[in-house]
Amino acid sequence: MSEAQVKNYLKNLKIETPSWGYANSGTRFKVFAQPGVPRNAFEKLDDAAVVHKLTASAPSVAVHIPWDSVDDYGSLAKYAHEKGLRIGAVNPNLFQEDDYKLGSIASPDPRTRAKAVTHMIDCVEIAKKLGSDALSLWFPDGTNYPGQDSMFKRQDRVFESLKQVYQAMPESMTMLLEYKFFEPAFYHTDLPDWGTSYVHCLELGPKAQVLVDTGHHAPGTNIEYIVAFLLRQKRLGGFHFNNRNYADDDLMVGSADPFELFLIMFEIVSAGNLAKDVAYMLDQCHNIEPKIPAIMRSIMNVQEATAKALLVDQPALTSAQESGDVLGAHAILMDAFATDVRPLVAEVRQELGGEADPIKAFEESGYQKEINESRASGQSAGWGA
Amino acid sequence: MSEAQVKNYLKNLKIETPSWGYANSGTRFKVFAQPGVPRNAFEKLDDAAVVHKLTASAPSVAVHIPWDSVDDYGSLAKYAHEKGLRIGAVNPNLFQEDDYKLGSIASPDPRTRAKAVTHMIDCVEIAKKLGSDALSLWFPDGTNYPGQDSMFKRQDRVFESLKQVYQAMPESMTMLLEYKFFEPAFYHTDLPDWGTSYVHCLELGPKAQVLVDTGHHAPGTNIEYIVAFLLRQKRLGGFHFNNRNYADDDLMVGSADPFELFLIMFEIVSAGNLAKDVAYMLDQCHNIEPKIPAIMRSIMNVQEATAKALLVDQPALTSAQESGDVLGAHAILMDAFATDVRPLVAEVRQELGGEADPIKAFEESGYQKEINESRASGQSAGWGA
Amino acid sequence: MSEAQVKNYLKNLKIETPSWGYANSGTRFKVFAQPGVPRNAFEKLDDAAVVHKLTASAPSVAVHIPWDSVDDYGSLAKYAHEKGLRIGAVNPNLFQEDDYKLGSIASPDPRTRAKAVTHMIDCVEIAKKLGSDALSLWFPDGTNYPGQDSMFKRQDRVFESLKQVYQAMPESMTMLLEYKFFEPAFYHTDLPDWGTSYVHCLELGPKAQVLVDTGHHAPGTNIEYIVAFLLRQKRLGGFHFNNRNYADDDLMVGSADPFELFLIMFEIVSAGNLAKDVAYMLDQCHNIEPKIPAIMRSIMNVQEATAKALLVDQPALTSAQESGDVLGAHAILMDAFATDVRPLVAEVRQELGGEADPIKAFEESGYQKEINESRASGQSAGWGA
Amino acid sequence: MSEAQVKNYLKNLKIETPSWGYANSGTRFKVFAQPGVPRNAFEKLDDAAVVHKLTASAPSVAVHIPWDSVDDYGSLAKYAHEKGLRIGAVNPNLFQEDDYKLGSIASPDPRTRAKAVTHMIDCVEIAKKLGSDALSLWFPDGTNYPGQDSMFKRQDRVFESLKQVYQAMPESMTMLLEYKFFEPAFYHTDLPDWGTSYVHCLELGPKAQVLVDTGHHAPGTNIEYIVAFLLRQKRLGGFHFNNRNYADDDLMVGSADPFELFLIMFEIVSAGNLAKDVAYMLDQCHNIEPKIPAIMRSIMNVQEATAKALLVDQPALTSAQESGDVLGAHAILMDAFATDVRPLVAEVRQELGGEADPIKAFEESGYQKEINESRASGQSAGWGA
Repeated sequence: MSEAQVKNYLKNLKIETPSWGYANSGTRFKVFAQPGVPRNAFEKLDDAAVVHKLTASAPSVAVHIPWDSVDDYGSLAKYAHEKGLRIGAVNPNLFQEDDYKLGSIASPDPRTRAKAVTHMIDCVEIAKKLGSDALSLWFPDGTNYPGQDSMFKRQDRVFESLKQVYQAMPESMTMLLEYKFFEPAFYHTDLPDWGTSYVHCLELGPKAQVLVDTGHHAPGTNIEYIVAFLLRQKRLGGFHFNNRNYADDDLMVGSADPFELFLIMFEIVSAGNLAKDVAYMLDQCHNIEPKIPAIMRSIMNVQEATAKALLVDQPALTSAQESGDVLGAHAILMDAFATDVRPLVAEVRQELGGEADPIKAFEESGYQKEINESRASGQSAGWGA
Repeated sequence: MSEAQVKNYLKNLKIETPSWGYANSGTRFKVFAQPGVPRNAFEKLDDAAVVHKLTASAPSVAVHIPWDSVDDYGSLAKYAHEKGLRIGAVNPNLFQEDDYKLGSIASPDPRTRAKAVTHMIDCVEIAKKLGSDALSLWFPDGTNYPGQDSMFKRQDRVFESLKQVYQAMPESMTMLLEYKFFEPAFYHTDLPDWGTSYVHCLELGPKAQVLVDTGHHAPGTNIEYIVAFLLRQKRLGGFHFNNRNYADDDLMVGSADPFELFLIMFEIVSAGNLAKDVAYMLDQCHNIEPKIPAIMRSIMNVQEATAKALLVDQPALTSAQESGDVLGAHAILMDAFATDVRPLVAEVRQELGGEADPIKAFEESGYQKEINESRASGQSAGWGA
Repeated sequence: MSEAQVKNYLKNLKIETPSWGYANSGTRFKVFAQPGVPRNAFEKLDDAAVVHKLTASAPSVAVHIPWDSVDDYGSLAKYAHEKGLRIGAVNPNLFQEDDYKLGSIASPDPRTRAKAVTHMIDCVEIAKKLGSDALSLWFPDGTNYPGQDSMFKRQDRVFESLKQVYQAMPESMTMLLEYKFFEPAFYHTDLPDWGTSYVHCLELGPKAQVLVDTGHHAPGTNIEYIVAFLLRQKRLGGFHFNNRNYADDDLMVGSADPFELFLIMFEIVSAGNLAKDVAYMLDQCHNIEPKIPAIMRSIMNVQEATAKALLVDQPALTSAQESGDVLGAHAILMDAFATDVRPLVAEVRQELGGEADPIKAFEESGYQKEINESRASGQSAGWGA
Repeated sequence: MSEAQVKNYLKNLKIETPSWGYANSGTRFKVFAQPGVPRNAFEKLDDAAVVHKLTASAPSVAVHIPWDSVDDYGSLAKYAHEKGLRIGAVNPNLFQEDDYKLGSIASPDPRTRAKAVTHMIDCVEIAKKLGSDALSLWFPDGTNYPGQDSMFKRQDRVFESLKQVYQAMPESMTMLLEYKFFEPAFYHTDLPDWGTSYVHCLELGPKAQVLVDTGHHAPGTNIEYIVAFLLRQKRLGGFHFNNRNYADDDLMVGSADPFELFLIMFEIVSAGNLAKDVAYMLDQCHNIEPKIPAIMRSIMNVQEATAKALLVDQPALTSAQESGDVLGAHAILMDAFATDVRPLVAEVRQELGGEADPIKAFEESGYQKEINESRASGQSAGWGA
């Protein structure tokens, strides 16, 4: 691939940021509040606009309902538009009400399931108003103890619930169905692996696609394999990018394992046109580090991993692979990983109208100081808010 | 369920033993040879017949080709029949020739793939001669290093190869497609999870079914969930039972985690008629313990786990589950697990014509001493043999 | 061991319950509030007294400071005494203030470390007033990102801080030093394994002992080995019992893996006199199940696991082990595990003055209804409270 | 650190290669024989000499006894010397004889333990003759089944055995004591973690040091933390470098996780003088890739990881860490990792008299062709040989 092609690919790589990532977050033990945190959906968009201005690569923002509930979704969409942004995936929250104690769409209680379905269908309507074409679904469903509920029957409930939502979606909307290996305190999760999501998507229809959250796998899982397989099956809807050392850590993507991110992006790049509709979304917390720079760093990490993936000499690689040259093929891949792509990626951002060093530019901009002051009063948005 | 029903279920529970389990096995470091080990397929059947005589629950024997190659498969089937046995699944070995260095059906070398397919089709013919209706497939395929080969293209090769074998199978034959999370030294395996096996089975046709080897999962995986899901999808072909503490340990089933075995059998029992065609097969080594007693112990472990599963008060459980009584439902399950079912299971074996205590009966039988002497000369069968 | 000896051992087995287990708890996503939850330390003792009355096996209660802070610790101790209880381990909380954002005793900020040390020394004084002789230490310390801080220097800070606390303890007090493999979002924890706790204890002195929380290990870790090793080194201070499927789940001990609990108690029982000072403490949440019955169930699980461990035929086991009889030795252990010990343990509780079926007795007592009403107003204690 | 200092550090970084790495190896399923593999210890040294000539960084070779047994160890040492090499660590094999079926130094059979001790003491004598000052100990000891043996008593046996060997060592010799989290088919290993090795070393004396094999940890373990902790305690004897995706994979170091290798070397570099006696040893298989290039690639990987670690701006890092600048500190570390150090390391090798591109130089040298021909007859050395 020529340098121009590499740059062109990177210029088309857009990374969606999550509204909740701009807000306070934490662990079960403690949410460490930070100064300047947005107090509502509009202020989250203000921060996202700064990220997009400096990186020129993050034009859309995922929202959570009800975290980002507003009276008039049309005006929120308009506000985004004025800021150079658009609303990306809409995420219905189904985990912060007492009714969901035993699950949402898999709950043994039919009223709870109906409530969950209603909320999701409401979110379909909200998405229409927001101009969003993606409904991103994650469920906190599962059981804590063996015997607590029938894992088998819960699958029936999951499917029946999803079907109602699927049918309520307009033709242009995609359902992104996330899976998660474990949830703290759980004995089982109802959507534990890509296989489960895939089977439900297959039975729902072509608008249902699997969403890969990079933090939601068993230890030792080869995530890039899953990515390749889903691409082959034309069912990779997108990513929730983040990184982890052990659990569902929601750290900055590329911080705990930059090599893994490279290998994932290499499968994307290798799949060519099959990957054209994949959504790249960050889904991470910034519990102890400043949020806006952390989000920019994450975007840069995805860009750098992708740039390295693009630099792989594919014809040479294919030739080595087909001739069974194990060391040679591996070396071709590793050569790309060893390359310092920071200058190249900085150039790409600049050519797009962003900054070579977005974090430095942010520090020099005075924006953080400004929001620390202007948002000093009122209730910060955050985890549980 | 009445005691009569429990007993009836247990009487119909047949557990297939693996011919290679009677032979020598080991780790990469060392095969510890044992006295009296069979020297060929016929002697393996002799040992299997003893196991069946004493347990009255193991009427079939899985074979591996070429480990169990003989000149006349008709005579091997006849020998089995005379011993009160039949041949169960036929397993084509695809991992012990230099050609398979880079994989078998996923190898980049088309000649290697053709060779693998030919061997499997040969095994279909052998299975017909042996009166077997199950082709059990496990592949050692994968790569050791990132970049070594295209994970994506390898899936195409896997599917193309399987399709040829599938088409060569008679209507009455089932293809059991095993998956494996990892293989020592591997960067990726080509069939790493149930999802991959399931998708291939779906695309192959109704005679292809997923085979669950209990030792082939990532740490923390809830295997009973996978069992329940595959039963719901009508694609659970059977089990390779064994147990593990960390890796692919191939220890006696129920020895490392008896609770997990109970939970698996509970899903089987709960699925009722959906589980009627599931094959229960041991697939384990006995590296340091005497082989025949270890196999009997494993059979007893499956029987005891199943008996406990049958004792679960299902109506009470369902009622507790549906009313959201977390502790109550869990307690009903655990009460069954806490029950001492050894006397019940011993009775079942006796009523079938076997022994209450098969291991003691074996020790008193003098059989081990006999084979130690009669098989003292010649080459013992075993791992790599 | 004779039945009388078994019973005697079980009668002397006392299990400490945690005050926070009676209060509300949850995950980072949601705390599901329950009715009747205590509003302060005194009401927690009320609930603990019910547990002790019904089980006759839980005479002490661990407290957390500041969760259980009161104006007059003497009166709290007196209240406990009147209820037939005593205060067990005192746990200084070091994880719920903004100052601890980068850790407590390992923080790069010397003022934060001094604050943490001061709080622990305050807790030593509180422990004296409460008649407690155990200071139980768990630290939320670690880093989220590679490079964030020096893992090496943090060890120096940990040791310097612990030394100050150790020196402030009276001769009769034990420091129980907990370790934890991971914390959500962490790159490293400062006390990740028993080895680290052990080394610090060794360097602190004989009053410092390792505390094993059964949920704080890497997947696949053989916890009973650690127990055996620490007993051999005379540094096993005690347990925080709970259970887990994947992470730090804090489920009821014995619910996710009853076999593991049996194996742990078997090491305890086998160590005889070496285990005489080990503290058995529950440390668990009850997020979705009713709290008092869940705590009683946990106590019963420990009792049943211990009873099975006591039933192991030790002379026969030793003989089988020493003669290299792998299957025989394993069978002796498994025979004890297969035994239904519920009647025996029920008898023990009755002979102690408790109930054969404490959970049923609790349901019949009307206590839950009573507290649901009497505690309907006011602020429930809980996670973060 | 100036470029000259970086280069100087790298020039002093010597990596020991393992004699068995030049020989055939495999998994339990298959050893894939390669052409040109050495047939004895002398030919292994020939290959090691090529590696050292081309990399100028691998002057010593670890040997295994009896794999590398010769009649006259003096002549082997002399041969090494003539080739520009010296013999590094001596590894007594204790895992390939029937006597070791239940373990070596922890076996319940006192004769087996005595045999193992005798072999190790023989190896002390061999080491003296070879001019080696390191005895590197790895034990295959453990149990397969719960109850099989007493984990507690086995520790006593381990210590008693080690003590005899320790006492037989000359003053100048170091005992390197390896640990291993699991072994296929094992329920427990007798030296499962650094803590166990450390405690035994502490009780043995100052000549006993912990050996970290990078492939011998539980999933999710932070190995660089262990390295830092052992350096702080002055008990890090050295490394067995290799890499893994899941189990004890023995892949080329830096191939599966190059970031981890960087983080490990960063702890080494940061520890300065504390790391001065650490032994850097490869301990890997090359089952499907050509062996000599794979070993050189591994050496280069260690060099590159170390070069990146040396480029970390330590004063800036310390300042960011101490001021609690999480993102800033992380960024300083990551900047070094993102740097392309291949040219720098190539220069270092050239200045040492080696090759900029050792693998290309090897391919052009014709050496492989030469040994393929000259070693075509006779028995190749290898796994099990």
